Amino acid sequence: MSQTDAPPPRPHPPVTPLAAGLPATVPFVGPEAQERARGRPFKARIGANESVFGPSPRAVEAMAAAARDAWMYGDPEIHELKAALAARLGLAPDAILVGEGIDGLLGYAARLFVSEGTAVATSLGSYPTFNYHVAGYGGRLIAVPYAANRADLDALLAAAKREQARLVYLANPDNPMGLWWSAAEVARFADALPEDCLLLLDEAYLETAPDGTAPEIDVARPNLLRFRTFSKAMGLAGLRVGYALGAPALIREFDKIRNHFGVGRVAQAGALGALEDRDWLAGVVRQIEESRAEIAKIAEAAGLAPLPSAANFVTIDCGRDGDFARRVLAGLLSRDVFVRMPGVAPLDRCIRVSCGRPADLTRFAEALPGALAEAV
Amino acid sequence: MSQTDAPPPRPHPPVTPLAAGLPATVPFVGPEAQERARGRPFKARIGANESVFGPSPRAVEAMAAAARDAWMYGDPEIHELKAALAARLGLAPDAILVGEGIDGLLGYAARLFVSEGTAVATSLGSYPTFNYHVAGYGGRLIAVPYAANRADLDALLAAAKREQARLVYLANPDNPMGLWWSAAEVARFADALPEDCLLLLDEAYLETAPDGTAPEIDVARPNLLRFRTFSKAMGLAGLRVGYALGAPALIREFDKIRNHFGVGRVAQAGALGALEDRDWLAGVVRQIEESRAEIAKIAEAAGLAPLPSAANFVTIDCGRDGDFARRVLAGLLSRDVFVRMPGVAPLDRCIRVSCGRPADLTRFAEALPGALAEAV
Repeated sequence: MSQTDAPPPRPHPPVTPLAAGLPATVPFVGPEAQERARGRPFKARIGANESVFGPSPRAVEAMAAAARDAWMYGDPEIHELKAALAARLGLAPDAILVGEGIDGLLGYAARLFVSEGTAVATSLGSYPTFNYHVAGYGGRLIAVPYAANRADLDALLAAAKREQARLVYLANPDNPMGLWWSAAEVARFADALPEDCLLLLDEAYLETAPDGTAPEIDVARPNLLRFRTFSKAMGLAGLRVGYALGAPALIREFDKIRNHFGVGRVAQAGALGALEDRDWLAGVVRQIEESRAEIAKIAEAAGLAPLPSAANFVTIDCGRDGDFARRVLAGLLSRDVFVRMPGVAPLDRCIRVSCGRPADLTRFAEALPGALAEAV
Repeated sequence: MSQTDAPPPRPHPPVTPLAAGLPATVPFVGPEAQERARGRPFKARIGANESVFGPSPRAVEAMAAAARDAWMYGDPEIHELKAALAARLGLAPDAILVGEGIDGLLGYAARLFVSEGTAVATSLGSYPTFNYHVAGYGGRLIAVPYAANRADLDALLAAAKREQARLVYLANPDNPMGLWWSAAEVARFADALPEDCLLLLDEAYLETAPDGTAPEIDVARPNLLRFRTFSKAMGLAGLRVGYALGAPALIREFDKIRNHFGVGRVAQAGALGALEDRDWLAGVVRQIEESRAEIAKIAEAAGLAPLPSAANFVTIDCGRDGDFARRVLAGLLSRDVFVRMPGVAPLDRCIRVSCGRPADLTRFAEALPGALAEAV
């Protein structure tokens, strides 16, 4: 029998109807896959909102020390890290949930609250991985357009009420746009939500935001869950540690479904080391502020409009449509500068540049004029 | 208003009916929680089937080097590690799924194949975390008693057919009993399963099993998914890396739901380092064999019956009922020796002792007679 006569593979046992209906798309293609496709590495990696400034040396030391002990499972109660977070935040440990990055925690939240047909409100063009989780559990996503480059709180509230949404997702500061609402405005939004609607407030970029961006943490409020992470300003994206803050009864629900041993020993140690080094974090935040200003200057010098940003990136309005911005992006990628852009209109008139070291931004500055010239 | 007059906490938004029905139990309490409750550390940690012999120094070096790069997300395609596994196993990379430990992968499998009422067959007293995942997606667990301390393949097959199970779980070598079936017997079992029933073959302990335990890997077989891990003989339980082998079309289904960035950069690097150090693994396997023999000797000297084991632990039949074994276990714990035991009858007449260094086993040998004397 020749190879072309080989029988087709037999089908595997059927997945659930829900799983069968899911698309095969992935939320993000990593820069490594792009490098493999291109056949050469990027020279500036400023596309995934990672912290090029790296983790604290204390985190690095803690990971290296824990590496020798990596034969032991991590503490499933994540006691030490939760205690340190509790002390830092002035909360009881039972108001804190530590998990496998905000991605993992958002997945657990979707699993707890979303079944087929559950309405979930978010902003159109906001975090794709959240949408992926909601779709993955059969939720019905209500996507509310941004207004003036920010989540439209009034429209989001109206949509949540109208659709009887069980979850509302809000990133503050926003990703991918970088803008932010004040603590008072977020609190007003949260107060106005129906009691049976849970606000998932993603504060991944909080460390780099101005004072007055985060509402006070009130864990007596039963319909608010806040997400924070070691992946951004803390420089530990490759470790997978995030945490959520909320009412203890709500936090306890996650124990029914979370992967109890999912945050390993090395990850717990690294996060604890990072948390202890406040000076490092302060230094990184300063570098990010300088870098944001420099990215804005480069954009303006090229005739583009950078948006204000409270995050570790600057989103740049390329001033035309999505096709134009995609051509600019392609020009930057071909010049070995890894950046990303929002996925849907009208946000996709922008590109998003993560903060970088001076050498990274020099490469960006050198690449941008050529990319723009080619895109016209 | 005095504190006792404080209003009760308001309820949080309701979780799904499925989640509301889940118990608050956890699959395993970690030794750290026990140490906190006791107020003192264990002196021998031989209860969680971790590898006291540690990870390869090459894995440790790789993790330490990756720690500095931990600001970067891990490659979501996990390309390098999959390529290395593929080369080692003689498979195409698209037959391999890498995930957050076998625990994480079993959770994904349950999510893909189990919805409310789906029948799932396993052995009564087998891996609690698998049962936790099945219950977590609303599955109906059919638990088939062991026969002669092994999974009863004929009864498991009959139950799977009778109940039209979508999934069958089989650990070979077995946990918690340590016994194993030959490759031929496992293959015969897999061949006899209906095509719409997926066999989840957990081979976490394969490295320490005799040659001839694992059937040949045939990824043309669409209803078999095999699970392996870096947590056991590889000594990286605290890193959270496992992998599954199966038909490419089946592997691709996981891309619809997995946490694409869930295996971080440090974890990928450590696993790759461990995989490259075959000599270290061979040395660990020898130490485990010696340790198994020593545990058996200690058990026999105390008048107990160790079971044969192909895993990195020895299960010891205490010869009476579960209450007796629980008292023996309590006596060992109180003597600062961390061991575990199976959770359900009749397996719970046993205790389970993980392989240890000579010093660990000396502590066990010293503690056992007193624990037994107290238990009578």
